[in-house]
Amino acid sequence: MEGHEAPLALVDELVGLALREDLGPTGDVTSRLVLPEALTSRARFTAREPLVVAGLSVAGLVYRKIDPRVVFTPLVEPGSLVDRGRALAEVEGPARALFAGERTALNFLQRLSGVATLTRAFADRMKGTRCRLLDTRKTTPGHRVLEKEAVLLGGGVNHRMGLFDGILIKDNHLAAAGGIAVAVRRARSGAHALLRIEVEVDTLAQLEEALALPVDMVLLDNMDVQKLRKAVALRDDRNPRVLLEASGGVTLDSVGAIARTGVDFLSVGALTHSARSVDIGLDAA
Amino acid sequence: MEGHEAPLALVDELVGLALREDLGPTGDVTSRLVLPEALTSRARFTAREPLVVAGLSVAGLVYRKIDPRVVFTPLVEPGSLVDRGRALAEVEGPARALFAGERTALNFLQRLSGVATLTRAFADRMKGTRCRLLDTRKTTPGHRVLEKEAVLLGGGVNHRMGLFDGILIKDNHLAAAGGIAVAVRRARSGAHALLRIEVEVDTLAQLEEALALPVDMVLLDNMDVQKLRKAVALRDDRNPRVLLEASGGVTLDSVGAIARTGVDFLSVGALTHSARSVDIGLDAA
Amino acid sequence: MEGHEAPLALVDELVGLALREDLGPTGDVTSRLVLPEALTSRARFTAREPLVVAGLSVAGLVYRKIDPRVVFTPLVEPGSLVDRGRALAEVEGPARALFAGERTALNFLQRLSGVATLTRAFADRMKGTRCRLLDTRKTTPGHRVLEKEAVLLGGGVNHRMGLFDGILIKDNHLAAAGGIAVAVRRARSGAHALLRIEVEVDTLAQLEEALALPVDMVLLDNMDVQKLRKAVALRDDRNPRVLLEASGGVTLDSVGAIARTGVDFLSVGALTHSARSVDIGLDAA
Amino acid sequence: MEGHEAPLALVDELVGLALREDLGPTGDVTSRLVLPEALTSRARFTAREPLVVAGLSVAGLVYRKIDPRVVFTPLVEPGSLVDRGRALAEVEGPARALFAGERTALNFLQRLSGVATLTRAFADRMKGTRCRLLDTRKTTPGHRVLEKEAVLLGGGVNHRMGLFDGILIKDNHLAAAGGIAVAVRRARSGAHALLRIEVEVDTLAQLEEALALPVDMVLLDNMDVQKLRKAVALRDDRNPRVLLEASGGVTLDSVGAIARTGVDFLSVGALTHSARSVDIGLDAA
Amino acid sequence: MEGHEAPLALVDELVGLALREDLGPTGDVTSRLVLPEALTSRARFTAREPLVVAGLSVAGLVYRKIDPRVVFTPLVEPGSLVDRGRALAEVEGPARALFAGERTALNFLQRLSGVATLTRAFADRMKGTRCRLLDTRKTTPGHRVLEKEAVLLGGGVNHRMGLFDGILIKDNHLAAAGGIAVAVRRARSGAHALLRIEVEVDTLAQLEEALALPVDMVLLDNMDVQKLRKAVALRDDRNPRVLLEASGGVTLDSVGAIARTGVDFLSVGALTHSARSVDIGLDAA
Amino acid sequence: MEGHEAPLALVDELVGLALREDLGPTGDVTSRLVLPEALTSRARFTAREPLVVAGLSVAGLVYRKIDPRVVFTPLVEPGSLVDRGRALAEVEGPARALFAGERTALNFLQRLSGVATLTRAFADRMKGTRCRLLDTRKTTPGHRVLEKEAVLLGGGVNHRMGLFDGILIKDNHLAAAGGIAVAVRRARSGAHALLRIEVEVDTLAQLEEALALPVDMVLLDNMDVQKLRKAVALRDDRNPRVLLEASGGVTLDSVGAIARTGVDFLSVGALTHSARSVDIGLDAA
Repeated sequence: MEGHEAPLALVDELVGLALREDLGPTGDVTSRLVLPEALTSRARFTAREPLVVAGLSVAGLVYRKIDPRVVFTPLVEPGSLVDRGRALAEVEGPARALFAGERTALNFLQRLSGVATLTRAFADRMKGTRCRLLDTRKTTPGHRVLEKEAVLLGGGVNHRMGLFDGILIKDNHLAAAGGIAVAVRRARSGAHALLRIEVEVDTLAQLEEALALPVDMVLLDNMDVQKLRKAVALRDDRNPRVLLEASGGVTLDSVGAIARTGVDFLSVGALTHSARSVDIGLDAA
Repeated sequence: MEGHEAPLALVDELVGLALREDLGPTGDVTSRLVLPEALTSRARFTAREPLVVAGLSVAGLVYRKIDPRVVFTPLVEPGSLVDRGRALAEVEGPARALFAGERTALNFLQRLSGVATLTRAFADRMKGTRCRLLDTRKTTPGHRVLEKEAVLLGGGVNHRMGLFDGILIKDNHLAAAGGIAVAVRRARSGAHALLRIEVEVDTLAQLEEALALPVDMVLLDNMDVQKLRKAVALRDDRNPRVLLEASGGVTLDSVGAIARTGVDFLSVGALTHSARSVDIGLDAA
Repeated sequence: MEGHEAPLALVDELVGLALREDLGPTGDVTSRLVLPEALTSRARFTAREPLVVAGLSVAGLVYRKIDPRVVFTPLVEPGSLVDRGRALAEVEGPARALFAGERTALNFLQRLSGVATLTRAFADRMKGTRCRLLDTRKTTPGHRVLEKEAVLLGGGVNHRMGLFDGILIKDNHLAAAGGIAVAVRRARSGAHALLRIEVEVDTLAQLEEALALPVDMVLLDNMDVQKLRKAVALRDDRNPRVLLEASGGVTLDSVGAIARTGVDFLSVGALTHSARSVDIGLDAA
Repeated sequence: MEGHEAPLALVDELVGLALREDLGPTGDVTSRLVLPEALTSRARFTAREPLVVAGLSVAGLVYRKIDPRVVFTPLVEPGSLVDRGRALAEVEGPARALFAGERTALNFLQRLSGVATLTRAFADRMKGTRCRLLDTRKTTPGHRVLEKEAVLLGGGVNHRMGLFDGILIKDNHLAAAGGIAVAVRRARSGAHALLRIEVEVDTLAQLEEALALPVDMVLLDNMDVQKLRKAVALRDDRNPRVLLEASGGVTLDSVGAIARTGVDFLSVGALTHSARSVDIGLDAA
Repeated sequence: MEGHEAPLALVDELVGLALREDLGPTGDVTSRLVLPEALTSRARFTAREPLVVAGLSVAGLVYRKIDPRVVFTPLVEPGSLVDRGRALAEVEGPARALFAGERTALNFLQRLSGVATLTRAFADRMKGTRCRLLDTRKTTPGHRVLEKEAVLLGGGVNHRMGLFDGILIKDNHLAAAGGIAVAVRRARSGAHALLRIEVEVDTLAQLEEALALPVDMVLLDNMDVQKLRKAVALRDDRNPRVLLEASGGVTLDSVGAIARTGVDFLSVGALTHSARSVDIGLDAA
Repeated sequence: MEGHEAPLALVDELVGLALREDLGPTGDVTSRLVLPEALTSRARFTAREPLVVAGLSVAGLVYRKIDPRVVFTPLVEPGSLVDRGRALAEVEGPARALFAGERTALNFLQRLSGVATLTRAFADRMKGTRCRLLDTRKTTPGHRVLEKEAVLLGGGVNHRMGLFDGILIKDNHLAAAGGIAVAVRRARSGAHALLRIEVEVDTLAQLEEALALPVDMVLLDNMDVQKLRKAVALRDDRNPRVLLEASGGVTLDSVGAIARTGVDFLSVGALTHSARSVDIGLDAA
């Protein structure tokens, strides 16, 4: 019998929540009434369009929580780019359990594969540059860890997971704190030893000020390609070890040009806040 | 002091989950280090494009959970169609709390208003018909109740909430049970007294069979406009009290024609699985 | 190794609660001190009076939660009418676990079999009529799902599970809403597509009004047999597809006469609020 | 503003469970659709038969959890014996909240007042003796603490709360341990310093053996009145500080005679496993 | 396959909490990035100084919760006194899981073995007397049950587990209640039948008063050896069945003399509030 | 009325756990029986020895959870060094609530102030150097966040909070991964953009290798003062922006000399694994 690593606590909780909202206090009434208890069944999750696969392990968890007797077997590697018609996973077990989990499993698979697929599209346009594609905190509430994993599978790199594991001093912080210098000093003296510090700037003047401080990374907010090139030059001149992140309104059309400015990272909220669900079906096998 | 109705348990849980994933075990490190504890602040959620508003109460809950001292005041009615620039809500309280909740509140507001806005677009195209717009179970896991409320605000009607509060016998159930007649009989004799029964059919022959049974509603899966018209005629002839739902691949282009076939309901998965986040910002007030 | 369907979330929670109240923070002190850890044992749950069996699966869950090594084997079908002396289930495993779970398992079995047994008594007196026996929401807090299942096993039919999966407009609603017509209209336009609507009436005049509205079922509150007959006649005349439910003060003595009036359903709060525990013991095997 | 002691954790959890089973994922659909949000209302819980009042604080908690704006005001002291028609508590607040909590509050009040009322009946028949009335662990799963409090309000005394806060060595323990002496010794040497030890005996010979050991109390199982008198005499002679508890099949008819045998305690499972719900209604005020 | 008794609810919760604080929302980042998923490993927990072993089962639970595939095998009996170098347990399984659990497992083992080791030191100095060593409620919040078990393993006896399973009337209670007599009477008449009652006294005069009341045990607070001897004599004279507990400032130096005064128990807060962590390491095997 | 920032989720959970273990299913039996419900009281937490104060807010939370009517008022700033006799906080409210929370509040205050006090002792010996004092993950399970805050209050700096918010590649990782270079590369390419990377080395040769890689910090394990000086020199020569942390067996005696070697950080497990509880009492005010 195959074992299983315990899922991350938040993922486990989200799946529990998703099942409770669909099953309510009483479960899948239709299947309980219509299907014999002893009936077993087998089916396959199949891509109905080309896509990058993500969400297989959470789909497996959905079934394991409904009925431990269900066997869920992935048929492709997470992160694979597959064609229409490709079987992604097989599920086998009591028919009632298969019905009860189908919609929730699909809802996860379609959304997460959608994120991975969109990420791949952006990443493909950045090929040949050293710039890396970052996600943001603009994720679906409760799905942060899953969506960030989908970004990895699509070829992106994660930005910080949340407010707790990275310091990003934004313009509002600067205003309230009284300037970059004091904000950075406070952050560095109180942050734990392994947290990096990033500061957001809107102008090259601010960037210059930031490059003189003990920051690890600077977020260049809403700068156009020309300005980004100047920012890179300034960084190379003043403090080459500081990383630069471009952010703001990046689209599939503009991503290539931005990546070629020489910034180290480029972050795209759309990866998670605007990915559409891709089409995946469950077919009797 | 204003009181508050307790939130639905699942909504409360989802918001807790969303905050834990963003705040982690240690909270908003940046704000704690950079902002003075006593600093208070005020800001407004503002539409950056025309949209139908949804998610205000869950945004308020986000802040209430972070710090009960925060006051969140909606400035428009849920379901309002607003123009770009309109302030949707004001939030006031400890600055650290405002920063800690901003992203999560926005993530909810943008997604849910996105669902309401898309629903309104579909509903508008159905005006002048008696057909009503239904959502589906293709919702974001954990967000079912919120998204279904956004559909209502956008002018749609809810289909069942989940597997527990409505009986929908699908083609796979029919296959496993051995036919429509036996499946409907089993469902009716075991279901509780206030649950309606709907059965999915793919052909007019199946519809004819269903109309002879004690069903309340029939789902017409993936039929084109012509076939739908025939289905309506058949229903009117055989069992006029049975409701008809059209389903499958409905788009903004096709919705009007389908609505005019005379079906009672038309369900659109895209309302919840493919709505994009609309643009809402938080501006210092 | 036999698998197990995961229990419904609320049942799982109730059993956890029941064990925590009995085991406290420290568990079964007596057995831990007095019994050797390695001792295993076997015992049988036995009917000490004639009864209809319910609660076997929750009794099994009690033991599974205490110690997964315990094997609980039902020996009769749920819903069976058994004589005094009949063994209902066998339990085998570590002696400490058997002792720790005995009282809680019995408390469930005795109460739930009590509900099933009382339901059977009512149902038996309704034989030969088409009237069906309904339960109510007068259940033991936290035990709703279990008691409703016991009603099914005893030969009854469930009314709605709770406030969420059926619409029942009561007299107080009518007063507050300003009449039946407006209340029914509001309910139908906002309710989801698969929820039935029932309205409570006290008089034949109200019934007449209700029968002209899009309701699915009418609750006839506290009407005597003569009035119920008139109600049935009125329904047959005006709107034969509306179902009628008689309610209020039904006893074992009156149930037969009421059932013969032609109402479709008859609901009895006593099934769950006044069933006594039947006598079941656990004997060493 | 009046404050509130936080409820015991298990009571809080049970009430949460009770509300979730009745409200489901979506709440009270009928009231939400039919009643205006701003409507407030007032009502009184009223005895419809003579009864001893219990459950007021848990009924108040039900409403507080649904909507903190509801004000619940007890009108009688817990444990009062009241006549038919007496108002027990008043509840005032948003009408939707009053409807949503009515059934759950009543389900608690009727059951717990039923336990208190039955306890009072037993206790009344023991007046004039020094014998005290005990409850057992035959309580409704999840309701232990509440039912034991109802027993106190009815004039009884609690036995141990669960397996964790008192040692009761039963016949099966004795068999497995190899005799009373060894079982008592093991229990005393491992139990914590403030736990009393009770041992169950079936015969006077066993009682004699127990009285020679460091036990605090002896349970006399299923002895008739004559045997109980002998047991008391034996105890008075051998070890007068040991307490005696009579148990097994005590009824309202037999309780007086047993209490007069001189036993210190008399335990009655029926107090909690067979109390019927008393009739309490909620009337608009 | 070996089964497992389910852990006590509070222990299970504490371990869950400990893992969530260490793993956060995202888990062991280092191991996930650096180690291959398929790598398995084996290691041994080894004493780096002489110690009394406690905490093995909770260490096993830590790993079981991280990944059910990990096999944790204790190599010594709980409560054993072992020398430096002795292997206490072996753990084998996926390398990532071993790394993820190492620190938490060690943190439990080192603290709990520290408590057992210190308890043994105290108990050793009490040998040859009939006095028994008690712990107190001065335990680490959330670790009560585990630390009390470590005290047992070290040779001590538990005092009550908490405020719920034993009555200890302290000086502040006496002041508020208006004297020992009334306090004891109230306690005895309301406490459940198997709870012992202890009362705290500061003077011999108070002890004399207490010995005339129905108390089971008296706590002699902060008395020196001479006074304790007088207290024992008084007890022997007035009410020999009452147990005496000495408390307050007991050290390894003073414990022997106090134990020889004839008191039945001696309680030491330091067992749990001042035990240091003992040195245990995890070595690749 | 003063508001309150919501506590961090893990702290809230730990306090709930601590109360459940002490209060059990039934609460503080003694106070409920002995003290009148209406009695209110006031008391002060007072230092019984010189100490650095930590834990005030969690002590306040303990009372707030028991009874929201209790008012807890800190009288000194967190992190203050106070003399024996100084009042640290005042608590006022229902007497039963004050008794119920006393022990748990003290258990937190004494332990956390113990950590802060020990940290201060180490930090004092490092004065005059630029070296900073770090804590470790050797914390009490479930108390991580609280103990790390106490370290800050004592004058230390936090190392990463857990396995999730910092990358520390240890010797075992290196062995399994096949060398420093590959391990660092894997970590850097998969870690999120704001996580620093630290690598553990045992020798100067390893340090040399590490300094050539993109690491942010190096942990020098168990090196003596002489070796640490050489490490600092090597770092200054090869890669001056890399931070150095000395670790292993640091004591109050050795800490000064190590700090003067020029390392940037020095970590001490004893701050949290071996701090003793300081003496704090609660006196009626």
